[in-house]
Parts: sequence; structure tokens; C-alpha cells
Amino acid sequence: MTAPFPHHYRVELDGRVLAAPPRAPIAGGAPPQFGGKDVWWSPEELLLGAVALCLMTTFQALATRAGVAVRAYSSQVEGVLDKTAAGLTFTSIRVQVAIVVDADAVARAETLIHSAEKHCIVSNSLKTPPTVEASISAAT
Amino acid sequence: MTAPFPHHYRVELDGRVLAAPPRAPIAGGAPPQFGGKDVWWSPEELLLGAVALCLMTTFQALATRAGVAVRAYSSQVEGVLDKTAAGLTFTSIRVQVAIVVDADAVARAETLIHSAEKHCIVSNSLKTPPTVEASISAAT
Repeated sequence: MTAPFPHHYRVELDGRVLAAPPRAPIAGGAPPQFGGKDVWWSPEELLLGAVALCLMTTFQALATRAGVAVRAYSSQVEGVLDKTAAGLTFTSIRVQVAIVVDADAVARAETLIHSAEKHCIVSNSLKTPPTVEASISAAT
Repeated sequence: MTAPFPHHYRVELDGRVLAAPPRAPIAGGAPPQFGGKDVWWSPEELLLGAVALCLMTTFQALATRAGVAVRAYSSQVEGVLDKTAAGLTFTSIRVQVAIVVDADAVARAETLIHSAEKHCIVSNSLKTPPTVEASISAAT
């Protein structure tokens, strides 16, 4: 499943369009908070999206390996950008996750999401580690 | 132009879809290197996209302030993901930028792109700082 390391990832930007074919291009630009438009994906939101998606794909991989069927997964991530002595930076990134698994897998899913938090490649590449709050419930 | 700090950014993930309305949703998932599909934006590529876009928007903001008209801007970013003693991580992120400005602004653009490199919020949030190689040319 996993290709040999090292992996090489490549993305192109032309004007304001991010491309990595055959993926659909992304219209990017500054966020409204910095004078941009609300229909553009900003660098700030793409970074948060990378964090959210990394946690999910890492969790899914661990769940598959553990034989835990994930019935539903959703999350919201909020980042706070503020001035600090070191300049403008994300002072917090908070991920709230809601996961649904079968009743007999709730405890295992709880362990797995915290393991995913530790192993998420994007989180591990950030100076300010995201905090993860997970709510695991049983499928009815 | 810039809203008062702190700024709050929010992104939602439901299943594999990243949402931050009114932006177009992004179909995300694991990359082929980890057994995913090549039509999904992976966390790795979104992180690289955030780096590329942040450098561009930061450069554009500085250029506007300096009165430098940017005639064209494109970049490609490549990230190498490898095993290290600290686990799986990005060991390098390299951004190659091509900028076109008027002939009398080439030297200023060179200064501005390196200033953008220092002030890019996404780059500054990463443990491994991206390297930037810029090629500035004069519009003909």
C-alpha cells in the first residue's frame, strides 16, 4: 500500500491557481482577513485543511489495520492567528473530531485517534502542535 | 485591508470533503503514495499548496506596498517526505519561483521575494523552513 521512501510531492501555482493534476485545481488567494476574497482558499485555510485531512487519513489507516470499521468521521478545525514576539503566527490550532464506530469498538477508536494525533505527518511538521478533542460514539 | 488580530480561520471535514463556504469544496484523501487516489488532494499536497500560496500572497502584498507591478508569478513546490529518527517527516520543501516585473523593478522584486520568504505565515509555522529559489525577469 505504501510506496518506498522517500516520497516526492509536487504542486504548481500559476497566478492564483493551485494545480496537481489530475486533481481539480484550487482557486487560491489571500483571505478576507487580509483583503482577499471569501471564494478563494487561503494559505491559512489550506494549512488547516491539511491538518484536518491528515488526522483523518492517519486515523483511517490505523483503524483499517486494527480491524475497526469507521461508520462516520467529521471534524472541524479552527486556527487562531495572532501577533507574537516572534511575529505573526498560529498561536493555536484546535481540531474537534466526531467519530462513529460500532459499540464494541468505541474504546479502541479512542486509542486510535490519539495514536493518529501523534503520527499525523502534517501536525508533526508544525511548530505549534494542534490539539485534538475527539467525541466517539456508537453506531445505533 | 487587514482585519484586527487575532484572526480566526475555520475549515470543516465531512467524510473526505473539505469545506469552508463559500469556497468550492475540495475532495481530499490519502495520496497514491499511501494507497489513496490521484484525484484526491492529499494532506501533503495541501500543505505544499499552502506554502506556495502563502509565499505568493505575501510577495504580492509587499509588492503592492512597494509600488512594484507584478506582471506574472508562478511557482512549483516539491516536498520530500522521508523516515528520520523523529519519524516520518518532510525533510525538505523547495519552492522555485518565476516572477516577471518591469525592467526597472527587477532588483526590488528580488529583495521583496526574500522578504516574503521571511514573513510568510505558513513557512514560519513549519519546523523545516522551505527553501526559496527565485528567478526574476523583466517584462519585454
